[in-house]
Amino acid sequence: MNTMVHTAFIELSSRGFTHIVDITESVRRALLESGLTEGLLSVFVPGSTASVTTIEYEEGVIEDLRQAIERLVPSDVAYRHDERWHDGNGFSHVRAALLKPGITIPFLDRALLLGTWQQIVFMDFDNRPRKRRIVVQLVGE
Amino acid sequence: MNTMVHTAFIELSSRGFTHIVDITESVRRALLESGLTEGLLSVFVPGSTASVTTIEYEEGVIEDLRQAIERLVPSDVAYRHDERWHDGNGFSHVRAALLKPGITIPFLDRALLLGTWQQIVFMDFDNRPRKRRIVVQLVGE
Amino acid sequence: MNTMVHTAFIELSSRGFTHIVDITESVRRALLESGLTEGLLSVFVPGSTASVTTIEYEEGVIEDLRQAIERLVPSDVAYRHDERWHDGNGFSHVRAALLKPGITIPFLDRALLLGTWQQIVFMDFDNRPRKRRIVVQLVGE
Repeated sequence: MNTMVHTAFIELSSRGFTHIVDITESVRRALLESGLTEGLLSVFVPGSTASVTTIEYEEGVIEDLRQAIERLVPSDVAYRHDERWHDGNGFSHVRAALLKPGITIPFLDRALLLGTWQQIVFMDFDNRPRKRRIVVQLVGE
Repeated sequence: MNTMVHTAFIELSSRGFTHIVDITESVRRALLESGLTEGLLSVFVPGSTASVTTIEYEEGVIEDLRQAIERLVPSDVAYRHDERWHDGNGFSHVRAALLKPGITIPFLDRALLLGTWQQIVFMDFDNRPRKRRIVVQLVGE
Repeated sequence: MNTMVHTAFIELSSRGFTHIVDITESVRRALLESGLTEGLLSVFVPGSTASVTTIEYEEGVIEDLRQAIERLVPSDVAYRHDERWHDGNGFSHVRAALLKPGITIPFLDRALLLGTWQQIVFMDFDNRPRKRRIVVQLVGE
């Protein structure tokens, strides 16, 4: 069977301030529309104030994750980025650099190899609402 | 040469509580059995309480890593996940979301492009022993 | 169109101590030289004391990131790795394990799908100057 590449995009609006959005169904749709059965799927956010990971999308643990990120990279300490650029989102840039812009997930038999309670989430660390365009790219057969 | 996809699985038992297991040899075996010579290899753990990274697998630094993770995401603070679900592993979920479910490693001439002292490790953050099935997927030629 | 694999290397000297180097242009050159138009690009550092991420490469936020990493994994606490091996870089190993050895970026129409202000950076956590050889591998068509 021939290996192919397929690139799709997910568009969404976020509130910023570590808004965590479940994008699993949109990613799954991109996989089904690609027609591919087995390979690697990359979820990647262009931009330097957001990230992607997986988590059980349950209200309690989503809030736990938000609080952990606030504790690890506080929004209320001084950042040099803000002294220079005055956009006040130094903490957003640092969070995104530490948590990285994407993840790669294998798929088989047209299904993502996720756990039962494992969802794909987009995290917007910016300090204002944003429109975002997330890349979903598949390489497989 | 034709590009192909190959998917394999590693099964293991872990003790949980940030048990860190060296899986380099199992991953290497999956690469050799695939017959591929050059491409990308993904190591991915289905589930939302575990992760994968690389480290020099040396007893001292493994313990350093475990202590750093305990310091960054403590197991003894309150998590909302636990208030709701009473399974007591809120910290496991947060650790896994921050450290992400997998890594991607390039290979060439049938060898992983790792450093000499760089091993691939599975980290189980759950609060009990678990049987795990880790995905190793290769896309290459 | 046929899918292919292409592997390139970037060589650089770093100062260590969380020296953060912008490697975007070198990665872009590897993409152009591959002749590929659409697919996945992996940037991976062999070795267990360095990492790769993306950030807006601006002096202020680079220093913010360095300070955040120092705060999260301090260089001035005791590490068991150092007690055993006396090379004093326990903190470098822990930082690299947490931040992982690479990232994967999708490309389309011969261009990396990065944001306008998003650069690819190599981070050297070791406690001495190092010569490094970073892998850039592309799988695509």
